Amino acid sequence: MSEVENAVPQRRPGGRASRVREAVHRAVLDIVAEHGVDKVGIPEVSRRAGVRDSSIYRRWGTRENLILDALLAASERALPLPDTGTLRGDLTAFGAALIDLLDSPLGHGLFRALAFVTDSEEITEARKAFWTTRYRLTTRMISDAIERGELPPDTDARIAIELLIAPIHFRNLLTGDRPDAEFVDHLVTHVIRALRPGDDGRAEDGRA
Amino acid sequence: MSEVENAVPQRRPGGRASRVREAVHRAVLDIVAEHGVDKVGIPEVSRRAGVRDSSIYRRWGTRENLILDALLAASERALPLPDTGTLRGDLTAFGAALIDLLDSPLGHGLFRALAFVTDSEEITEARKAFWTTRYRLTTRMISDAIERGELPPDTDARIAIELLIAPIHFRNLLTGDRPDAEFVDHLVTHVIRALRPGDDGRAEDGRA
Repeated sequence: MSEVENAVPQRRPGGRASRVREAVHRAVLDIVAEHGVDKVGIPEVSRRAGVRDSSIYRRWGTRENLILDALLAASERALPLPDTGTLRGDLTAFGAALIDLLDSPLGHGLFRALAFVTDSEEITEARKAFWTTRYRLTTRMISDAIERGELPPDTDARIAIELLIAPIHFRNLLTGDRPDAEFVDHLVTHVIRALRPGDDGRAEDGRA
Repeated sequence: MSEVENAVPQRRPGGRASRVREAVHRAVLDIVAEHGVDKVGIPEVSRRAGVRDSSIYRRWGTRENLILDALLAASERALPLPDTGTLRGDLTAFGAALIDLLDSPLGHGLFRALAFVTDSEEITEARKAFWTTRYRLTTRMISDAIERGELPPDTDARIAIELLIAPIHFRNLLTGDRPDAEFVDHLVTHVIRALRPGDDGRAEDGRA
């Protein structure tokens, strides 16, 4: 997208608005990566982006909306939804892209920042909205698989996404292991089995 | 264990050594919860625990060994291995105990501290040793299930544990949702299916 903008820099309608949005987002993400999400303030964003703070308030309304918009845009750019035609292909591609993002300075700063939200109730709400939107977007991989008949219609899409991304974030944030392609393949095998009808141990537990 | 100690406070052999260990551990955990794992120093531990630093060095050797020993002891106390007789029962009990721990000030501080190790290579090594030991201990739930014939002999015990604990830590650290008993039940259903032979999607993917 930004290449198209660079190729047609002046006349395209919305060109200036879109350059402003990009500069402001970049400033927000830099501050998040350097100092954490709690430290994002509109005066500092205005200074770094070279955009008047009145313009920022007019466009985004609140600091929380601005942070949320910047984080969501960055995630969508860094984690485009794959469309490989199979559930296994989609989950594998998405897992690999997530590992690459977590290895990058942006991703490293972004998810550490999200893990350490200690500020206002508004920031906590923005974080919640971030994940709600991320789940809504990524569950398209699951609904596509249901449409193709690869998964049962009543599949819980959120737990499907969590089973894939949580172990990757867990290794990155907590154990410090770097997940690799072999791990993703192994994980995807388990996730797909988890989502298909099978024996879930209730029989042994006497609660079947 | 500590109740037994309280009941027989003076004469039990090893009583003093065990009280010293407890006081030192408590000082380490308090500093971890208050300031993070990077800030644990032997002089401060010595002051808080009322134990000479020469005694601490004699017993633990290094700061890193001391931190590791304290974190492992706290985890073992807070997350005793369940032995319910079924895989489903064990995983459910363990998941519930983990949620309780993450809700407590100790667990909150402990895992946030582990997520933000930025200090020395030794601390990074101690963190790695922490998780290696935790995995070794917790995989007993999986090996018991294999012995009972509930899981195939080639089950990957580490991924089994990760599929259970990663989504719980993920919600706690990243999304801010509080996992509850219903979520644990739902998660355990998926984990057990993931570990049993089933269709893993390789057929659709043309790689079967």
